[in-house]
Amino acid sequence: MRKLPAIKPMIPALALAVAGLAVPALAQEAAPAAAEPALPAGISLDGVYVFNTLLFLIGGFLVMWMAAGFAMLEAGLVRSKNVTTQLFKNIVLFAIAGIMYWIVGYNLMYPGDGWAIPGYLGQLFSPKAIDAVATGAVDDGYSAGSDFFFQLMFCATTASIVSGTLAERIKLWPFMIFTVILTGLIYPIEASWKWGGGWLNEMGFGDFAGSTLVHATGGFAALAGAIVLGPRLGRYKGGVVQPFPGSNLALATLGTFILWLGWFGFNGASQLAIGSVNDAADVSRIFVNTNMAASGGAVAAVIATQILYGKIDLTMVLNGALAGLVSITAEPLFPSIGGSVLIGAVGGVIAVLAVPVLDKLKIDDVVGAIPVHLCAGIWGTFIVAATNPDTNFMTQIVGIVAIGAFTFVVSMVVWLVLKATMGIRVNPEAEINGLDVSEMGMEAYPDFVHAK
Amino acid sequence: MRKLPAIKPMIPALALAVAGLAVPALAQEAAPAAAEPALPAGISLDGVYVFNTLLFLIGGFLVMWMAAGFAMLEAGLVRSKNVTTQLFKNIVLFAIAGIMYWIVGYNLMYPGDGWAIPGYLGQLFSPKAIDAVATGAVDDGYSAGSDFFFQLMFCATTASIVSGTLAERIKLWPFMIFTVILTGLIYPIEASWKWGGGWLNEMGFGDFAGSTLVHATGGFAALAGAIVLGPRLGRYKGGVVQPFPGSNLALATLGTFILWLGWFGFNGASQLAIGSVNDAADVSRIFVNTNMAASGGAVAAVIATQILYGKIDLTMVLNGALAGLVSITAEPLFPSIGGSVLIGAVGGVIAVLAVPVLDKLKIDDVVGAIPVHLCAGIWGTFIVAATNPDTNFMTQIVGIVAIGAFTFVVSMVVWLVLKATMGIRVNPEAEINGLDVSEMGMEAYPDFVHAK
Amino acid sequence: MRKLPAIKPMIPALALAVAGLAVPALAQEAAPAAAEPALPAGISLDGVYVFNTLLFLIGGFLVMWMAAGFAMLEAGLVRSKNVTTQLFKNIVLFAIAGIMYWIVGYNLMYPGDGWAIPGYLGQLFSPKAIDAVATGAVDDGYSAGSDFFFQLMFCATTASIVSGTLAERIKLWPFMIFTVILTGLIYPIEASWKWGGGWLNEMGFGDFAGSTLVHATGGFAALAGAIVLGPRLGRYKGGVVQPFPGSNLALATLGTFILWLGWFGFNGASQLAIGSVNDAADVSRIFVNTNMAASGGAVAAVIATQILYGKIDLTMVLNGALAGLVSITAEPLFPSIGGSVLIGAVGGVIAVLAVPVLDKLKIDDVVGAIPVHLCAGIWGTFIVAATNPDTNFMTQIVGIVAIGAFTFVVSMVVWLVLKATMGIRVNPEAEINGLDVSEMGMEAYPDFVHAK
Repeated sequence: MRKLPAIKPMIPALALAVAGLAVPALAQEAAPAAAEPALPAGISLDGVYVFNTLLFLIGGFLVMWMAAGFAMLEAGLVRSKNVTTQLFKNIVLFAIAGIMYWIVGYNLMYPGDGWAIPGYLGQLFSPKAIDAVATGAVDDGYSAGSDFFFQLMFCATTASIVSGTLAERIKLWPFMIFTVILTGLIYPIEASWKWGGGWLNEMGFGDFAGSTLVHATGGFAALAGAIVLGPRLGRYKGGVVQPFPGSNLALATLGTFILWLGWFGFNGASQLAIGSVNDAADVSRIFVNTNMAASGGAVAAVIATQILYGKIDLTMVLNGALAGLVSITAEPLFPSIGGSVLIGAVGGVIAVLAVPVLDKLKIDDVVGAIPVHLCAGIWGTFIVAATNPDTNFMTQIVGIVAIGAFTFVVSMVVWLVLKATMGIRVNPEAEINGLDVSEMGMEAYPDFVHAK
Repeated sequence: MRKLPAIKPMIPALALAVAGLAVPALAQEAAPAAAEPALPAGISLDGVYVFNTLLFLIGGFLVMWMAAGFAMLEAGLVRSKNVTTQLFKNIVLFAIAGIMYWIVGYNLMYPGDGWAIPGYLGQLFSPKAIDAVATGAVDDGYSAGSDFFFQLMFCATTASIVSGTLAERIKLWPFMIFTVILTGLIYPIEASWKWGGGWLNEMGFGDFAGSTLVHATGGFAALAGAIVLGPRLGRYKGGVVQPFPGSNLALATLGTFILWLGWFGFNGASQLAIGSVNDAADVSRIFVNTNMAASGGAVAAVIATQILYGKIDLTMVLNGALAGLVSITAEPLFPSIGGSVLIGAVGGVIAVLAVPVLDKLKIDDVVGAIPVHLCAGIWGTFIVAATNPDTNFMTQIVGIVAIGAFTFVVSMVVWLVLKATMGIRVNPEAEINGLDVSEMGMEAYPDFVHAK
Repeated sequence: MRKLPAIKPMIPALALAVAGLAVPALAQEAAPAAAEPALPAGISLDGVYVFNTLLFLIGGFLVMWMAAGFAMLEAGLVRSKNVTTQLFKNIVLFAIAGIMYWIVGYNLMYPGDGWAIPGYLGQLFSPKAIDAVATGAVDDGYSAGSDFFFQLMFCATTASIVSGTLAERIKLWPFMIFTVILTGLIYPIEASWKWGGGWLNEMGFGDFAGSTLVHATGGFAALAGAIVLGPRLGRYKGGVVQPFPGSNLALATLGTFILWLGWFGFNGASQLAIGSVNDAADVSRIFVNTNMAASGGAVAAVIATQILYGKIDLTMVLNGALAGLVSITAEPLFPSIGGSVLIGAVGGVIAVLAVPVLDKLKIDDVVGAIPVHLCAGIWGTFIVAATNPDTNFMTQIVGIVAIGAFTFVVSMVVWLVLKATMGIRVNPEAEINGLDVSEMGMEAYPDFVHAK
């Protein structure tokens, strides 16, 4: 792991070595190159295409892995009687997201020739480029399939955020129907405003990898759901917050580590290119800044909970790290390392402070998704204007408000319709017995004697 | 995450930027290139070699990770008194696979100059190319070491499939001996028929990444073992299937997510090349189709269990997703996205329907590996003929039957010999007390009070 | 997954295909290339830069994932009353490592112009290249950010090793303070002796990826801590080792699989380059050897525990695999596959044998980190001289002793100062009740009835 010497002196030796390995016909041509290395400084169009495609595929599988992270985090933070249900919701939402984003979402989000309402309907059921990708347009710089794969994972992430907040009292089928609408319509429409080349993009709104477009959006949808759904039974009995401790903190910590890992793909591959020196250097900066913001968020939460509560709270530290990650997501490229630590640290403190505020409002967010994804997401999007010279605070606020209002209102309407038609909440007896028995007929940990 | 503009207009700027960064001597040569970009359209032989090697290494570590997925899935689906044993089997089989595939399997599977029995013995103990790889043949297009690494993981996967079916009553040492034979002989021989350039390959049998060569093979070996071993005590008491619920559905779900993730390497890197525009586009298609088949399998299992049993069954949904993945493995490149969803969905339904059939036959498959890997594997291999024009249904059936017969018969013989010599089943008392105490003297969850 | 034919015959077809896809202007230039392929044999400077950077980023996220592996391994091996605390320590140490390695460690470790004490102080608070990396020096062969990201993960690994040994009785804040010193000063200083171009490097000491620089260093720091801290209450009651079984072997096994996976990044990316045929072949060899050493260690531990104790011990097998990995880390490139299996197997046996020796000395190492990381680390570093012709046994011993003495003495001083000032051990009542309740006020598994 000794650092390499500068590569310069190695080139002639390398060229010679390579010449010796090449096939005969080529070796002859390579021979003069060995004497006078004619390696071009750039990367060929094809090489750029492969590099960028590889970045999307690697980034995509890392973000896919975040779905497992949310599953473990949420399964660890609910009570043991609701674990099976929570696991189910996390795997089914990921499956639904894939299908809806294919049928509707991708075309809705990237209308191609500018964002316009009429464009939607015509394209709804004509899944495009991806099926014809083998004829690949090399001058796009990446394969359409890899782009679809990567973008899909962002859509799924948005849905993952919602499931945690609404845990322990929501019915399965309304949750699945909401997921269909969120992944097929709500997310693609608002994300189109920026990433589809829509009006927020033209206005100069900055959100590199989605502090608002993904995280706050998930948070707003969750907030609407939590308000319509109401708190869990007994949560605010006697005006005091009753602790409902998570059943498996090892899983919750595992989930946090998974999310931390996946975030390198989330932010890093959002550079969208790694086929040049500048892009490779930028992706590296993003990896570093992403890691440092998470570190800042975790350490800030350690200090904040020690001061506020006299004891370090593990779940707050996990959420602090995640809030740091959410905070840096809107702009992981421009900040310095120190700036990234600071942005993450503020995000971590915001997440810690938002928890009692929500409780005061009797909004019951089981896993703290609103403090982490909504509150820190807003913070991260706002502070972009301090580091990215192409943005300003006013535009950032406009973007946050527009996306927030759209997502919150539409989500609220959907939740209210679902409530009025099929009902969204299990009955009190089922809630007390746990959703695993009442909704799914299957306990997560049937061999162990439960404390309550 | 805004989509890139077409790369065309970026090239001059890129070339200029790059010229400014290059070392002086090269910058002079690059300067005219900036004016008139002379970047070749293709990728150099060396570049192709590195790209393909990288694909094998990334694919390989993703498939290696599937071993952990199987471990978690199986540890979650057995009862808590057998968890330690199941964990042990999963890690030891992976270690054994590595050693056996090196000593025997790799050379047996890729004899180089055509498949022939005599070739085996001479090569058994002369591990080849891999040790001399530093002299790397660049015109192979990838490093021998990366190929060995990737292929090894497929061998290990085959063994992982067996352990789940036979859980909760098999002795440790016979299981390990069977693993030695499976990874050293059975898998390499049948896989050689196709991937080693053998008779099935010449006949035109299609199995891109191993729906039959890996998954059904593991399933056939498991089926033979389950028949010889018999069902768990009390499983079919009174002619009715007694539910033996899995002890930790969080682990089972985690295992499924791990397998889903690893499958991108399993199928994607089976393209064997990513060093060209076409290969990169194909690998991307494979990633997408793999994901969509899993989504189709999961959603189909949700609907199927809701209809059949009136309740959604989480373990069936997990197996549905896995069955979708197995189904698309034989041909993840040719189907459209819609076709992939459908192929996966049918696989998911097959897995759900196969469970009661096996129970009717009193074949006790603890984790459902036969429905998932054998049944969906056959389906996936069969349906290749509908999408890949180079194949036909007759050849697909011949391949499935040949591999199935070979694997099942040889496995049956091995299991019977093991039964007759050392015995393969623990005694009833040990089975009732659990294998963790009786076979390993170590409980998996010693701190918790167990329900039974 | 059929092996590719040699790439030679594919080149003309590829060139033709590519020409057809290229942008018009380039296609004209590419046309003659199709007739007479002029693809250069080498890879351009820019291409090498991107490949190497990608290797660091992939290697870095795999090693980052090892932090989760340590967390799960340790959470699984402590008793359930100390799980929350152990989880917290693992996530906070990773966050601290990031911040300290940035503020102090990286510059301390790579002083640039030769290792010298004065160099340190001047650079302590002037974080360098990483912030200016966008101007990236292409002739370095990789981006500074990717290098920082990768190196940081090694620093964090060193800290992860310590936490396991000292589990179940150490106070939180002294542990965090020690982590600050270890990641900010101890690791960077000793690692600088080799990887920073210091005196051990000039002497010819060989430690490719850190059997001693990372693993034994973590082990020495843990050993000093274990001596100062003393064994857990009741561990050696009546002169006999009392078994304190781990509370969750599924997590411990998961952690081992995570570490096994992450180690491909740890060793593989320590090649520091993959932008040439030779480097790609070398990275592949390293992946293979790393896997085979782990297999050797696991199988050796199976046999050793069967012989020594009459039963296979899962936790010993997990540690055997890890010891195999540690053993090969000092030189994963030169050994043959067989040699790697053997080196790993000896490491596995050493780890098994070291456990009773430590117990005899009443050094209480909760997770076996000293046998795995210190003992096998020394073995692996020593045996480098048998395979790498540039090293010799005497130099290897000098390196081990120098690093060991430095780390052990400094760590001992720090632990003693911490003990004398703030105290490092919780009081007996807190230890008996468990650190989760006494230190953190939060149980890891609150819903389950505990056995004791």
